[in-house]
Amino acid sequence: MDFKAKLNKIVEENNSLLCVGLDVDKDKMPKFLFKQNKNPFLIFNKKIIDKTKDLVCSYKLNMAFYELLGLDGYKILSETINYIPKDIIVILDGKRNDIGNTAEKYAKSIFHILKSDATTINPYMGLDSVQPFLNYKDKCCFILCRTSNPSAIDFQDLKVSNSYLYEKVAMKIKKWDKLNNNCGAVIGATYPRELKKIRSILGENIPLLIPGVGKQGGDIKKTVEYGTNKDGVMAVINSSRGIIFAGQNEDFAEKSREKAEYLKDEINKFR
Amino acid sequence: MDFKAKLNKIVEENNSLLCVGLDVDKDKMPKFLFKQNKNPFLIFNKKIIDKTKDLVCSYKLNMAFYELLGLDGYKILSETINYIPKDIIVILDGKRNDIGNTAEKYAKSIFHILKSDATTINPYMGLDSVQPFLNYKDKCCFILCRTSNPSAIDFQDLKVSNSYLYEKVAMKIKKWDKLNNNCGAVIGATYPRELKKIRSILGENIPLLIPGVGKQGGDIKKTVEYGTNKDGVMAVINSSRGIIFAGQNEDFAEKSREKAEYLKDEINKFR
Repeated sequence: MDFKAKLNKIVEENNSLLCVGLDVDKDKMPKFLFKQNKNPFLIFNKKIIDKTKDLVCSYKLNMAFYELLGLDGYKILSETINYIPKDIIVILDGKRNDIGNTAEKYAKSIFHILKSDATTINPYMGLDSVQPFLNYKDKCCFILCRTSNPSAIDFQDLKVSNSYLYEKVAMKIKKWDKLNNNCGAVIGATYPRELKKIRSILGENIPLLIPGVGKQGGDIKKTVEYGTNKDGVMAVINSSRGIIFAGQNEDFAEKSREKAEYLKDEINKFR
Repeated sequence: MDFKAKLNKIVEENNSLLCVGLDVDKDKMPKFLFKQNKNPFLIFNKKIIDKTKDLVCSYKLNMAFYELLGLDGYKILSETINYIPKDIIVILDGKRNDIGNTAEKYAKSIFHILKSDATTINPYMGLDSVQPFLNYKDKCCFILCRTSNPSAIDFQDLKVSNSYLYEKVAMKIKKWDKLNNNCGAVIGATYPRELKKIRSILGENIPLLIPGVGKQGGDIKKTVEYGTNKDGVMAVINSSRGIIFAGQNEDFAEKSREKAEYLKDEINKFR
């Protein structure tokens, strides 16, 4: 099954566009986990997954948080991916890119070895740095278009003839998608006007990965209204810190479930 | 000692602007290493380092090649870094970037835990995604400006008012360098005209990391002439595949030394 079919299936099954970001962070995780357990990070992830797997379409793992844990981090990353039920989309958020010969190695690591369904890619180096990822036809490449951070404006809002740079990137994504029908785009929920514009450039059939509705403060109504296609799908809406660090006690995973359920329902109100 | 002082010292000591890229790749490495040794990748790197450490100013490790090796890869990466003599510059080439909270994790991993002297960063997300790296004042952040690959033109050559996007990036690098005096720029040797332009924007005191003189075919004379400052320094010229995969037999490291020595001397001819 290719990415879009898998995404549509789980979105329907769980009636959810919610993606939970499993970004482990020792400073923000429940303290008791580090007293009781040999592998607090993996246990943390497993408990969150157990309690939210019927509420999400996807889990996203940002590679930075695992890279910081060094040797253990890779193991925790890989074991977490293996633990996620096979019908749920796994996004490895690495924002990698490099020249073709090197990008091939990243693509093999992310798709073939770690077996994720999708990844995030930085477009700055152009098509030949993205192509090795696109060659995995059943996977999805979410290409950074308009990111959720304040400094996104530094380059993404530069005017290129009559468009902004992020619009030029969206146009390229639309073009690159024709190669293997497996492009997506990353757009921060913190920029609803840009989100609307990007959806209109990309059309109905390219999935958007939309971070920024939780801690970063993006508006849910506008995110859903502008981000989904006319069938109310093809958008994956991510929250990480706002969900997974909801509790500090034994019931932390239940607290995460409450946050996840609330956000899922809020999103569905506007679909 | 800060990065620039360390770079200038080793450039003078070894009379070299050469950076050797330690990009391990099973398919290109001597076959016999995999029959005889438990840890062929680490042994390969150590032998190359032993034979070239008096010829270089820097070693660059592209993280993709180590990421592909999974759990072992991290160990090989970290042990290789530890094996490199302390007076030689270590560049961890990851082209990472992310929102501030996440970029902090990458920066800590790359500079604090893996103890590299410098890294490469993708500018697309703007200053707040670069700032966590810049906060390590004694390190250097080589920001992608004009990359060496053919598709670099896709976005980097877009016209923004009267400049190309890569020139706008160079102007920002010049500005960001004022914060902690620790920015650098990546420019492919395959684009000499752009290299000249970028050096003129950045002035005399910002180091350039210049890949593309080996397998990718960049011109050495122009690279040195346009890339160095008026004192013939502040440029780190990288070759990876062209040097480290020079031989397939027991004497592979000697063959690498020959290639490295030739390239070092060629570079010095034009300084």
